[in-house]
Amino acid sequence: MVSMTVHSPAQSGVISRRDLQFLLHEWLAVERLVQRPRFEGQSRDLFDEVLELSERIATDRFAPHNALGDSNEPYIGDDGTIVLIPEVAAAIETFGTAGLVGCSIDLKVGGMQLPFVVGYASFSFFLGANVGTSGYLGLTIAAANLLLANGSAEQLETWVRPMVDGRFLGTMCLSEPQAGSSLADISTRAEPQPDGTYRLFGTKMWISGGDHEMGDNIVHMVLAKIPGAPPGVKGISLFIVPRVLVGPNGTLEERNDVALAGVNHKMGYRGTVNTILGFGEGAQRPGGSAGAVGYLVGDQHSGLGYMFHMMNESRIAVGLAAASIGYAGYSRALHYARERTQGRPPDRKDPASPQVPIIQHVDVRRMLLAQKAYVEGGLALCLYCCYLVDEAATAPDNVERERAATLLDVLTPIAKAWPSQWCLAANDLAIQIFGGYGYARESLVEQLYRDNRLNAIHEGTNGIQALDLLGRKVAMQDGSAFQTLLEAIQRTLERAQAGGGERAELASVLGAVVERLADVTHHLLMEPDSQVRLANATAFLEATGHIVVAWLWLDQLEAAEHGTGDFYEGKRQAARFFYAYELPRVEPQLNLLAGLDRTVLEMRNEWF
Amino acid sequence: MVSMTVHSPAQSGVISRRDLQFLLHEWLAVERLVQRPRFEGQSRDLFDEVLELSERIATDRFAPHNALGDSNEPYIGDDGTIVLIPEVAAAIETFGTAGLVGCSIDLKVGGMQLPFVVGYASFSFFLGANVGTSGYLGLTIAAANLLLANGSAEQLETWVRPMVDGRFLGTMCLSEPQAGSSLADISTRAEPQPDGTYRLFGTKMWISGGDHEMGDNIVHMVLAKIPGAPPGVKGISLFIVPRVLVGPNGTLEERNDVALAGVNHKMGYRGTVNTILGFGEGAQRPGGSAGAVGYLVGDQHSGLGYMFHMMNESRIAVGLAAASIGYAGYSRALHYARERTQGRPPDRKDPASPQVPIIQHVDVRRMLLAQKAYVEGGLALCLYCCYLVDEAATAPDNVERERAATLLDVLTPIAKAWPSQWCLAANDLAIQIFGGYGYARESLVEQLYRDNRLNAIHEGTNGIQALDLLGRKVAMQDGSAFQTLLEAIQRTLERAQAGGGERAELASVLGAVVERLADVTHHLLMEPDSQVRLANATAFLEATGHIVVAWLWLDQLEAAEHGTGDFYEGKRQAARFFYAYELPRVEPQLNLLAGLDRTVLEMRNEWF
Repeated sequence: MVSMTVHSPAQSGVISRRDLQFLLHEWLAVERLVQRPRFEGQSRDLFDEVLELSERIATDRFAPHNALGDSNEPYIGDDGTIVLIPEVAAAIETFGTAGLVGCSIDLKVGGMQLPFVVGYASFSFFLGANVGTSGYLGLTIAAANLLLANGSAEQLETWVRPMVDGRFLGTMCLSEPQAGSSLADISTRAEPQPDGTYRLFGTKMWISGGDHEMGDNIVHMVLAKIPGAPPGVKGISLFIVPRVLVGPNGTLEERNDVALAGVNHKMGYRGTVNTILGFGEGAQRPGGSAGAVGYLVGDQHSGLGYMFHMMNESRIAVGLAAASIGYAGYSRALHYARERTQGRPPDRKDPASPQVPIIQHVDVRRMLLAQKAYVEGGLALCLYCCYLVDEAATAPDNVERERAATLLDVLTPIAKAWPSQWCLAANDLAIQIFGGYGYARESLVEQLYRDNRLNAIHEGTNGIQALDLLGRKVAMQDGSAFQTLLEAIQRTLERAQAGGGERAELASVLGAVVERLADVTHHLLMEPDSQVRLANATAFLEATGHIVVAWLWLDQLEAAEHGTGDFYEGKRQAARFFYAYELPRVEPQLNLLAGLDRTVLEMRNEWF
Repeated sequence: MVSMTVHSPAQSGVISRRDLQFLLHEWLAVERLVQRPRFEGQSRDLFDEVLELSERIATDRFAPHNALGDSNEPYIGDDGTIVLIPEVAAAIETFGTAGLVGCSIDLKVGGMQLPFVVGYASFSFFLGANVGTSGYLGLTIAAANLLLANGSAEQLETWVRPMVDGRFLGTMCLSEPQAGSSLADISTRAEPQPDGTYRLFGTKMWISGGDHEMGDNIVHMVLAKIPGAPPGVKGISLFIVPRVLVGPNGTLEERNDVALAGVNHKMGYRGTVNTILGFGEGAQRPGGSAGAVGYLVGDQHSGLGYMFHMMNESRIAVGLAAASIGYAGYSRALHYARERTQGRPPDRKDPASPQVPIIQHVDVRRMLLAQKAYVEGGLALCLYCCYLVDEAATAPDNVERERAATLLDVLTPIAKAWPSQWCLAANDLAIQIFGGYGYARESLVEQLYRDNRLNAIHEGTNGIQALDLLGRKVAMQDGSAFQTLLEAIQRTLERAQAGGGERAELASVLGAVVERLADVTHHLLMEPDSQVRLANATAFLEATGHIVVAWLWLDQLEAAEHGTGDFYEGKRQAARFFYAYELPRVEPQLNLLAGLDRTVLEMRNEWF
C-alpha cells in the first residue's frame, strides 16, 4: 500500500516533497533505522516534520533572495569587511535557530541525531532554493562532522557545540595558490608552541565562507605541515584555526591572525563569498606571538586521512547540491512549459488555430523527461549514498557495516561527478526550454546553470574523481571493493528478473551491460602500465556512473511497482527513458576502455 | 608541396592563422575561385592580406576590451540612450574604416567582393576575440546581404552603401514577445500609405544592436504583416525601418518612430546590447502621421522567404561564432596547460620532485585533444558551408551550383547546431583545465562559456534546427537533397579507400556508419505519422552532425596527407580522436531512430 498524496515539483517551487518521501520511505525505507540505538525514539513522523520545516524555511527565507544574492555578490567594504545582502544572515540565523545545523549531529553536542540521509534530504531543499546562502551552512555541518569524528572532547565543546547552536560557522582550508588539486604540495606551516598550540603561516585559496560578519565566529579547518614532517601528503596535519580566539569558558577574545587577502569573483555560487586568506601574515594580536593560533586535531601528520573522511561526505554533498540545483531548474522549466504557449503540433499547422502550451511539443517533452531522469536519478544516487553513511555507522551487523562502507567508498566519486555532469546538463536543457528568456538573467534558470557549473570542479575535479575511482577504489581490497558494487547491482537484477514483466526486461538489458563492465574492469586491472590503465579513467567514471544510475532507477521501479497514478507513471516513464536514451551511451565508452585506447596518451605537447 | 609555417593557436591568442590557411588553401583550395568572373583580379596574396589585417585589428582593437564589455554591460543612461564602453564604437569604426563590412559584398555598393568564405574566415578572428562587439558588425553584414539579394537599386544606394562604408549599422527584427520561435504568430502590422511607404506598429523582442549611439543610423530589417494578408507565415512581409529617416540625397532627417522599450540582461554576449523595440508607439515625429516609417523590400507577403535566405547565412554565422568562441577557449586552455605546474605523473609520485606542467597529465591532454577536435572540426564545417555559398553563386556549371545550393540547404541546420553544442562543450573543458581559476571571472574562459551558451538558442533553437533537418531538408526533393550529402561523403570515402593506409581504415569505419544512417533515414521517411517520425529529430540532428564532422575530418586528412611536422601530426591525431571517441556516439542514436522510439511521445503532461 503506497500513499497517494498529490504531487508536483512546483509545490515547493524547487524540489518535490512527494519525491523525497518516495525516496526516503517507499524506496529506502528509512523508517527501519529507528529500531537502531542511535535513532531510538525517532519516527517517520519526526522525519517528515523536519522535511516540512526545511521546505518551509527554504521556501520562505532562502528562495526569495537567491537571485538577489547572485546579482549583489559579496565585496570588501570600505572598512575591510565583507559586505553581504542582509537576507543571507537572516536566513542563516533562521536555519540555526531551527536547530537544523545539528540535524544529523550527535545529541551529546546539542544535535538532533537524525539519520544522515534525513538530514541531507532536508538540506536538499536549501541547496535547491539558494545554493549561495546554503554554502555557509553546508561547510559548517561538514566542519562539525570532521571534528566529531576526530576532535577531543574539549574541542567538541569549544567549537562544535556553538556550530550546532548556529553561533559559529565553519570552513575548509585546503587549497593554496600553488597547490590546487595537489595537496602534497601545500606549504602552509604550523609551528608547535610550548603550550601545545601551534602558530600557522601561509596562504589559503578558494576558501568559501572564509570571512564575513555573520555569527560570532568562523572555525577554519586548516591543512598545514609541521616543520620536520615527512614530505608530501604524509606530512599533513589538521588544525582548528578560529577567526576569533575563544577563552576557557567559551568567551570570545581577540581576533586571531587570519586576514582576508582578497575575494574571488565567480561565474556562480556568488552568494557564497570565496576568499583568499592569509594566516600569520600580520601582527593583528598586539603583544601576541606572530602566527595564527591553531589547535591540532587528532594526531600529527594524520590530517589528510581525517580530511578525506570528511571530504567523502563533502563530495556526496557536492553531488546533492548538483542534483538539487538541477531539480530546481527542472521544476521551473516544467512550470514554464505548461504555461507558455508557442507554435502548433506538426499535424495541425493552421495559423488561425490557437498556439499550444509548449509541453505539447515532443522535443520539449524530451527535454523535460531527460531532466526528470537526470535530477531524480541524481537525487536518488546521493540519498542512497547518505543512507550508506547511516548503514556504515549503525547497521546491527558488522559485515553489513563494512559492506556499506565499502560500497560508499566506491560510489563516492560517482556521487560527486555524475550529478555535477548530468544535472548541469539538466540545467542546460531548462534554459533551452525557456529559449531566449532562459538566456536572460531574469529567468533564474540562467543562474542555476552558472551555479551548477562549479560542482564539476570543487572538492576534487571530476578528472580527480575518475582517478580516484579507477586508480584507487576499483583496485582497493584486490578488486573486491568493486565486486561489492557489482553484487549490489546483481541483487537488484535478480529481484527484477524474478518479478518478470517490464522490470525483468530492463534487468536483462542492464545485466548484459554490467557483465561487460565487469569484464572491462578486469581487463583494465590486468594492464601493468598505469599510464595506459588510467588513460581513459574519465570514460570509466562516466560509464560506471550511468550504469549505477540505471541500476538505481531499476531499484526504484521495484518500490514503485504497486503504485498507481501519475506520480508512479512518471517514475516508470523516466526509468524507461533512462534505459532507452541514456544507458546505451556506455557501450562506446566500454569499447574504448576494452581497447586500451592510446590516442590521448600518444598525443604530444608540440602537436597541439 | 605544403607550406611549413610555424604554427601556434597562441599566435593570435585566439584562432590559429596557420589553421585558417590550412583550411582555406590546403583543404578548400579557395585560390581556384579567382578564375571566376566575380573574383577576377583577386589572388591568394590578397586573401592572406585580408586575413592578416583582420587578425591584427581583432587582436589590437577587439580582444583587449572583451572582458571589459562583459563586465560593463550596456545600460540605458539618464537621457534614455544606451551607454556602451567607448572601446566598442572605436573598434567598430576601425573595422568599418578598414572596409571589412564589405569584405564579401558586391563592388557595386562599395564592397571588396571577396569570396564569402574568405570574408567569414577573416570574421572568425573578430568573433573569437570579442563576440560582443562583433555582434553589431555581423548583423550589419547580414542586413546588407539581405538587401543585396532582395532590395531595389535605390534601396541599395540608400541603405547598403552606407553600411558598407561603416556609417550605418543593421539589425534583424523577427521575434515578438508572444512569438519567439513561431513566426507565424507575429502581430506587428504595416499599414500601406498613399506614397508607397508603410507605417509600422508593434513590439519586437530580443533585438541585438537594436539601439545605440554608434554610427549615423541603424537599419532595422523588420518582419510585419500588411492588413488583409494571408494568415500565418504566408502573410509576412519584409521592411526597412531606419532609426533615422534619410532624405533623397542621403541626408539624415528626423528620428523615425522606433523607440527603445527596454534592454535584456543576458548570461553572456553582454557587449551586444539586446533590446525590446516599440514601433509606432509614440508621436516622436512631430506633425508626422503615427507609425514608424517603413519601406517594403521586394514583394508583399514574401518576407519570410527573403528572411530565410538571409537566415541561412546567419545560421552559418552562428555556427562560426560558436566555433570561434570555442577556439578562443581552446587557445587559452592550451596556453595555461603548458605553463601551469601541478601534481606529478602516476609513475612518479615522489613529493620531493618538482610538479609538472599539467599538459603532462593524460586527462588534461584528453580535454585539450577533445577541444581541438571540436573547434577545428566546427571551424572546418562552417568554412565548408561558406565555401558552398560561393559555389552556389559562382560555380561555372549550373549543375554544380545547384548541387552546392542543395548541400548547403541540408548542412545549414548542422552548421548552426553542431558547433553550438560541441564548441560549447569545448569551452566547458577549457574551464575544467583551469580548475577553480576557470570558474573565476578573471579567467576569460568563464566568459567564453557564458557567451557560447547563446548559440544553441538564437537564429532558431537547436530543436528547431532538428525539425528543419528531419522534417524539411531530408524530405526535400523527394529525399534527393539528403542523397546529395550522402554522395558527397561517398566521394571522400572512395578517395580515402583508394589511397589505402590509415585513411582507408577510417573510411571503412565511417562508410559503415553512413550506410546505417542512409537506412535509418529511409526508414524514417517511410513512417507516415509525423509525430513518430519527428519524435527523435534531435537524435537525428546530433548523429548526422557527428557523421558530417567525421567526414570533414577525413576529407582534411587528404589535404594533410603529405604534410610533415607538428601541425600535420596534430591534425592527424585530432582526426583519430574524433573517430575513436566521438563517432561511436552515433550508434545508440541511430538505434533509437531505427526503433522509432516512442518513450518521449508517450510521456504525458500530468506524469511529470
